[in-house]
Amino acid sequence: MNLLLLEPSDFISGSVVRISGRRLRQLADVIRAEPGKRCKAGLLNGLTGTAELLSITPETAELSVAWNGEPPPKLAVTLIAALPRPKTFLKVLHTATVMGTERMIFIESWKVDKSYWSTPLIGPESVRENLLLALEQAGDTVLPAVEFRRRFKPFVEDELPGVAAGTTAIAGHPAAEASLPRHLSGKITLVVGPEGGFTEYEIGLLAANGVTPMSFGRRIMRTEFAVTALLARIAP
Amino acid sequence: MNLLLLEPSDFISGSVVRISGRRLRQLADVIRAEPGKRCKAGLLNGLTGTAELLSITPETAELSVAWNGEPPPKLAVTLIAALPRPKTFLKVLHTATVMGTERMIFIESWKVDKSYWSTPLIGPESVRENLLLALEQAGDTVLPAVEFRRRFKPFVEDELPGVAAGTTAIAGHPAAEASLPRHLSGKITLVVGPEGGFTEYEIGLLAANGVTPMSFGRRIMRTEFAVTALLARIAP
Repeated sequence: MNLLLLEPSDFISGSVVRISGRRLRQLADVIRAEPGKRCKAGLLNGLTGTAELLSITPETAELSVAWNGEPPPKLAVTLIAALPRPKTFLKVLHTATVMGTERMIFIESWKVDKSYWSTPLIGPESVRENLLLALEQAGDTVLPAVEFRRRFKPFVEDELPGVAAGTTAIAGHPAAEASLPRHLSGKITLVVGPEGGFTEYEIGLLAANGVTPMSFGRRIMRTEFAVTALLARIAP
Repeated sequence: MNLLLLEPSDFISGSVVRISGRRLRQLADVIRAEPGKRCKAGLLNGLTGTAELLSITPETAELSVAWNGEPPPKLAVTLIAALPRPKTFLKVLHTATVMGTERMIFIESWKVDKSYWSTPLIGPESVRENLLLALEQAGDTVLPAVEFRRRFKPFVEDELPGVAAGTTAIAGHPAAEASLPRHLSGKITLVVGPEGGFTEYEIGLLAANGVTPMSFGRRIMRTEFAVTALLARIAP
């Protein structure tokens, strides 16, 4: 935890919060919790600043907070990824959030195992909890949008053109002739396939709807590392 | 497994190999093992090509191999990383190998927990097995060099200047004034600190020995993702 992320419901007065549970335990790890100690803090979807410990018991801690900074800027990226297996989904959610992705849409694709859609890990409570952990890792406060689309063709034909409009829209595809530029700037729509890649039909449909297939080199990376490497090429 | 990695001891004749164990099981996953099926193959530290299944039993498979390609080029990078906790070490070893790092040196640093040096995961057998898995993921055949240095000061003063000579040598350091360029080319020496970063003394010693501290932005990433993002900025 590199930032103590607070929500309006944590406040017991204008500038004092009371926390318990996971955040209390992590706080104790981070600042050797004694009154007077400080740590970085942020208000969910708001400013960053400092929290100073006022009092602590095994169950709760009270801290005084002061806001004086902005969270780090987001990347102007919409990440569209074929839904990975559940453990990989959590890693992709983590790294994309840490790196500042504004919006993620997880989609169906031929090689997405149908069972991946039934994991509770993609439910709203799990997603929110994992997003909060990632924001605390990154030092960010602003939740990205995370959405799911279970039908490939309607998404690509009806919705994707609107998402991609006004952006540089690319899909990672090892067989593509074009190579990904070393450096991408401006608004980006980044489409990432499943393990084993998109089918030719899927790549064709993406290309017909405004997304350029591009190769990212010969080396085949695990999804969470491929997403990290692709986002690293996008300028903040 | 995106490439069946073979060693000289696998050969039972000039172009026929016999495999068992892990590779046999993974082969069965990848190509639905029936005689006549093919998969990508490579010779350890050598060429790539194709393997065709000749026969298979529950214990062994025999394949005929033909070499016709070069492995993907390496990145001209020496990665020097403070030894991470064991699980993170395996992830860093994996992603750095998949991305084509030529050489890795894991070093001591003030914030490296002493217990990390006693895990069997950093032993030569574990390292080799994990490198082979990463090469099979990447479609590469060439083992990177992986080394360990348990004393920070002698390494930085006596050895690092020779490693860094003729390279662009940078250390990731959030407090640095200089920002990492969007794109690095040529030979690179990349130094990555422990969780919590290098101490000021350590950064000073690195700087005095030819390594420029550079900031990689405000977002704090887990080590394996930071390494991935940094390597993604280096041109193949």
